[in-house]
Amino acid sequence: MVDISMIRAAATRLIGHARLTPMLQSPFLDRIAGRRVYVKAECLQHTGSFKYRGAWAAVSALDPAIRTRGVLAFSSGNHAQGIALAASQHQVPAVIVMPSDAPAVKIENTRALGAEVVLYDREREDRDAIAAPLAEARGLTLIKPYDDPEVIAGQGSTGLEIAFQARCERIRNADVAICSGGGGLATGVALALEADAPDLRVRTAEPAGFDDFARSLASGQRERNPRMGGSVCDAILTPAPGMLTLPVISRLGGPGLVVTDEEAMRAMAAAFSRLRLVLEPGGAVALAAALYHPDEFQGDAVICIATGGNVDSAVFAEAISRFGDGS
Amino acid sequence: MVDISMIRAAATRLIGHARLTPMLQSPFLDRIAGRRVYVKAECLQHTGSFKYRGAWAAVSALDPAIRTRGVLAFSSGNHAQGIALAASQHQVPAVIVMPSDAPAVKIENTRALGAEVVLYDREREDRDAIAAPLAEARGLTLIKPYDDPEVIAGQGSTGLEIAFQARCERIRNADVAICSGGGGLATGVALALEADAPDLRVRTAEPAGFDDFARSLASGQRERNPRMGGSVCDAILTPAPGMLTLPVISRLGGPGLVVTDEEAMRAMAAAFSRLRLVLEPGGAVALAAALYHPDEFQGDAVICIATGGNVDSAVFAEAISRFGDGS
Repeated sequence: MVDISMIRAAATRLIGHARLTPMLQSPFLDRIAGRRVYVKAECLQHTGSFKYRGAWAAVSALDPAIRTRGVLAFSSGNHAQGIALAASQHQVPAVIVMPSDAPAVKIENTRALGAEVVLYDREREDRDAIAAPLAEARGLTLIKPYDDPEVIAGQGSTGLEIAFQARCERIRNADVAICSGGGGLATGVALALEADAPDLRVRTAEPAGFDDFARSLASGQRERNPRMGGSVCDAILTPAPGMLTLPVISRLGGPGLVVTDEEAMRAMAAAFSRLRLVLEPGGAVALAAALYHPDEFQGDAVICIATGGNVDSAVFAEAISRFGDGS
Repeated sequence: MVDISMIRAAATRLIGHARLTPMLQSPFLDRIAGRRVYVKAECLQHTGSFKYRGAWAAVSALDPAIRTRGVLAFSSGNHAQGIALAASQHQVPAVIVMPSDAPAVKIENTRALGAEVVLYDREREDRDAIAAPLAEARGLTLIKPYDDPEVIAGQGSTGLEIAFQARCERIRNADVAICSGGGGLATGVALALEADAPDLRVRTAEPAGFDDFARSLASGQRERNPRMGGSVCDAILTPAPGMLTLPVISRLGGPGLVVTDEEAMRAMAAAFSRLRLVLEPGGAVALAAALYHPDEFQGDAVICIATGGNVDSAVFAEAISRFGDGS
């Protein structure tokens, strides 16, 4: 499993590669939420999402003799782009298995970053069953999007930054809301905060209908989602919490947060007008929880991780046209 | 006039107030431009533009006994918001004279930040003639948007950051393209770079039809714009270069850059899809020059200041709908 020393080692390897992303705020957002709202802008990370951190950490951790044969990933898009760029920076090939309904921009960008893309049907096919024989045939190393200790360690570097930035802002006893699919980021951040900022507590945030973490945290066992598609929050639709992630978040996190697709789109409009940030729907879920479900939080501040900003222009235009300034 | 010691003093006062904004890049933008492109994201500054720096610097430099009576500014919107927030943070009143055709979002935000807004007709009325009697009647101190030494000193703090960030990125002999209205930012940055990074050269960037700096730099005298409205780049439409700014930029800057409104909108789409940043048209002019006029530059890198991100949602939706990923 992952521990804080793995996270610190990954963060050290990431120096000079991952960006230290800013934590932004606006008096207008504070007014909506009724408390101070900080947005950790991982949409400004390389490839437009935090996934680059875990991807780079995992690729850099491979034995060079194994890495040189290449890596394989399955992803709805952000892990794909992270792996594609990290592989390219290590000068090794990357094959990415992506759902055919992933946003066009994510598929295009993954190819443009030099990866070979294999598409599959998210509703009918099992991505693991497609990925495994490919890995075997070419000697590729499979890098899972969240159930991989090195990936979780890389995502945890975000938590080390938050712990430092929260001290600079004199934030205490705040929740850290995190848009969650398989829970790799929430797990890495939870372990980082346990070590460096134990008064900050992780909260998973998910779209309604795909609230596997919220239900699993409530029931105490691993709950699955009934569907695998149908939400605009494509980046964070996973079948169930990860095997490595749920135990950590059960131990360290608070109750799961759930928002509607419409609230996610409204939060995109708020981030557009108040922070001048481009968020994708799945990357706006945590901010939506902070802005529109204030009763789910305690304390005078909340930190939201804006996990990604890779969004088709039509979806973004709809969000800002429908929801004004998001208030 | 302004010198480097004033800029360093302003930068010191701004610590803990202005954000140190990131300098972002993307391999996709590098491909369009044919060289490395760095975007200094002042759209992430408080109030969504670099103007907060100069506003806070000028308000903080006032004698407290004079400051307490309040400040007055005339502005198409970004200086207005900067002054409104800086005055509010100093707990003094602010009156802002704004053109009636300024984007609604800028007028609303200026009011929401606690300022009193007075509207005027940009084509028919002289904003100086409106502002002066107001200042006299209430004992307000007029803070001009660019022809004010303390404002220029505050904007210069951006240049100190760029000098440091360029060293971190090992950038040498690059141009620094700056969206320019009256030239306050370009002047402050030019003086900062002269001291801290003399191999970086300032280039003003303007929309076609409002290229007073480009023409003034070419002719050697102060040229005026024939019109005062009619470009989507509202933030940087000024009658002529400033009296304090043109001499500095003539001495330290390269030839002026000029782009079309359509190129500015295309650069907004590029920043949306490749950097996940929201730019306003006037804040995208420098990036547009770097991306679509590469022959105007030399060297293997260019730094563009993205000066602001306060844009009505309809204009932004049009930019990203029409221009895809801006390539």
